Amino acid sequence: MHVNFQDDAAKLLVNISHEFYRRGWMVGTSGNLSFRINDPGESLRMLITASGADKGSLTPDEILICGEDYDSISWQGKRPSAETSIHRSIYRSVPNAGCILHVHTVASTCLSLTTTTESNPAFLQFAEYEMIKGLGLWDPGAIATVPVFTNWPAVANIARDVELYLEAQQHIPAFLIRGHGLTAWGHDLSSARKHLEVLEFLCACAWENYRAGQRGG
Amino acid sequence: MHVNFQDDAAKLLVNISHEFYRRGWMVGTSGNLSFRINDPGESLRMLITASGADKGSLTPDEILICGEDYDSISWQGKRPSAETSIHRSIYRSVPNAGCILHVHTVASTCLSLTTTTESNPAFLQFAEYEMIKGLGLWDPGAIATVPVFTNWPAVANIARDVELYLEAQQHIPAFLIRGHGLTAWGHDLSSARKHLEVLEFLCACAWENYRAGQRGG
Amino acid sequence: MHVNFQDDAAKLLVNISHEFYRRGWMVGTSGNLSFRINDPGESLRMLITASGADKGSLTPDEILICGEDYDSISWQGKRPSAETSIHRSIYRSVPNAGCILHVHTVASTCLSLTTTTESNPAFLQFAEYEMIKGLGLWDPGAIATVPVFTNWPAVANIARDVELYLEAQQHIPAFLIRGHGLTAWGHDLSSARKHLEVLEFLCACAWENYRAGQRGG
Amino acid sequence: MHVNFQDDAAKLLVNISHEFYRRGWMVGTSGNLSFRINDPGESLRMLITASGADKGSLTPDEILICGEDYDSISWQGKRPSAETSIHRSIYRSVPNAGCILHVHTVASTCLSLTTTTESNPAFLQFAEYEMIKGLGLWDPGAIATVPVFTNWPAVANIARDVELYLEAQQHIPAFLIRGHGLTAWGHDLSSARKHLEVLEFLCACAWENYRAGQRGG
Repeated sequence: MHVNFQDDAAKLLVNISHEFYRRGWMVGTSGNLSFRINDPGESLRMLITASGADKGSLTPDEILICGEDYDSISWQGKRPSAETSIHRSIYRSVPNAGCILHVHTVASTCLSLTTTTESNPAFLQFAEYEMIKGLGLWDPGAIATVPVFTNWPAVANIARDVELYLEAQQHIPAFLIRGHGLTAWGHDLSSARKHLEVLEFLCACAWENYRAGQRGG
Repeated sequence: MHVNFQDDAAKLLVNISHEFYRRGWMVGTSGNLSFRINDPGESLRMLITASGADKGSLTPDEILICGEDYDSISWQGKRPSAETSIHRSIYRSVPNAGCILHVHTVASTCLSLTTTTESNPAFLQFAEYEMIKGLGLWDPGAIATVPVFTNWPAVANIARDVELYLEAQQHIPAFLIRGHGLTAWGHDLSSARKHLEVLEFLCACAWENYRAGQRGG
Repeated sequence: MHVNFQDDAAKLLVNISHEFYRRGWMVGTSGNLSFRINDPGESLRMLITASGADKGSLTPDEILICGEDYDSISWQGKRPSAETSIHRSIYRSVPNAGCILHVHTVASTCLSLTTTTESNPAFLQFAEYEMIKGLGLWDPGAIATVPVFTNWPAVANIARDVELYLEAQQHIPAFLIRGHGLTAWGHDLSSARKHLEVLEFLCACAWENYRAGQRGG
Repeated sequence: MHVNFQDDAAKLLVNISHEFYRRGWMVGTSGNLSFRINDPGESLRMLITASGADKGSLTPDEILICGEDYDSISWQGKRPSAETSIHRSIYRSVPNAGCILHVHTVASTCLSLTTTTESNPAFLQFAEYEMIKGLGLWDPGAIATVPVFTNWPAVANIARDVELYLEAQQHIPAFLIRGHGLTAWGHDLSSARKHLEVLEFLCACAWENYRAGQRGG
């Protein structure tokens, strides 16, 4: 992995951070973004946004390098996102995931709170929307099944649930956490952004339908 | 048809693609845009966006030329939009259509799912809105009738339904596909954009009214 | 009235037209904007947007001069807005009106359709909102009364209703037309824009409340 | 306090004013923004936006200096915000408050009108949203309690209520006024903006949930 790629990748994260902030998807320093930078077969390394950074004015020096061992990280006094362990779980479970985007939107947050708390994950299902093809579901009659994980106070527990789920079955490249926005990934930033935009569009439609009384989604 | 016009037309499609993406109308690589470039009496030729292109960063080399025969197309490894056949149906049925715009919006998607699945097309009707004049309906008491086509898995079947409908009766320059956004056209890009914006405004109002319980639209 | 002021006024209308278009308030060539340019005591003259102009790309040559006599107007093949007579009624009835802004928004359109058709104008009332001070209503417990005029097919009839109403009683500097957006004015463009923004904010709140079932507004 | 800091602080207020206006949070000249500029132990001094200023085109000379004694202020014919006394109450009650932002949004306005008028303040409570951590509430199961103050016609009475409340108990760095938008503060502008954005996000979610019939917030 060349240093130049790291610089470019950090700039890409900075740019999309500014763009998502302007959309209202990363207000109040919320959300976090990462790039995997290890080559296949090497141990996991990623670039990830620093904890508490303002996403509307993020700078490249607020993109930190993280490895497998969270605790040993130190970077000019900054700390990586408190949710780094969730990114690590995704990269470990999904070998071809190269970029992960986590944001908070009103629709996905509200929709996640309509699901049952009696299973973890709970599930949302999206059908009839042409847009689900954007999640890789091209079969006629396909249904997008979106897990909604419990928002444990200890982030490590969310990360554990995510990893167990992703390793155990086929899944779309995205999920929700209850009251805690949406997360999507892809092999590169364009792909991750596509999945994020598609899931947010679906959540926006489904929340509209939920409020209109068509609770089937 | 001069090459320069093709270059200009491609730039116009690129610009409106970026603009619609910023509005949230072409997220997740969704939607497609085209210009007719054959002269009257010549066989159909169009510029159309490439399949899977990111509409927020579309470039002129992602605008491809398509003719009547879809299968023979080849352009530097890219493929034209999977929905090229729908554009072809519109251009064939509407001789003065010069530009077609297809986007996905939350309101039009949700509204389309409220229509019956027992007829194809189903219909939405818009009355009382001053804005329907923008679809060419100036008579007092005019009602805009918007067809909503079945979203068949095989795009060719949607294209066939569209063509049969447009050739058989008077129609406004726009339609919906169930769960699949809105499509509008005009003799040039300004005219197509006007029809698209008007229909989206009407859909936004009608969806608000639907949710408020005034189901008459 | 100096020529330079006319040029400056036309530029101001062009700028605000572009801004309102970006907000989604003047889509599909809808809406119209004007400046009074006669001095007090002189006969009415105004600058007004041309009919059918795209508000997102309006140019100064699409701002036309109009006087009392609509029919005699001719300007390089363009025609002034079809709703020029409404602007004329406001300028005649309200001597200190210097600028009029008419746009279409989803909330004001939907809200206007909730009023009775049995009186003309019908009325909407806004209370409890701090924002009504922006309409000049500073008394404790003040209520903003907004007329909603019938959207007659003949614009001259709307203009007549507006003029009769404005001359007969105290009024706020704004009104709605049924299914036909909102109109506001002020002694200059800043003042007109303030009134327009305030009324739109109130309509947005009231429409939200209407949908939430609190029909008192 | 150096003059240069005052200049810089005024520019920061101007920039965020323009940004919030573009978001629709300061339309119709609404809202007001301030910076504390006295050193600890000195008597209160602040920079605050002038009354009636257009927030989309605010200029540094519309940022005025105010001290404890409102009446003695005079600044090139301008007057400080009519709500300066509320800012003063916050700065007096919260020693580490360095910046205060007050804006009007549709969601916070509508939500404030759903609370009881029988207590002052009334209260909104936000739970289950990850975003409440942005208000400094990190304990598992934490609930954000947001006061909603009566919107007395005399601003001094609102200021008195705010000061009594803030001095008497622990509080989050933000509140609502009934029908009168939201107010937040922090030790600097970034911190104040973070709290404002978080509260607005929570209000947007809670208003959506309220309308969906889940009145618990």
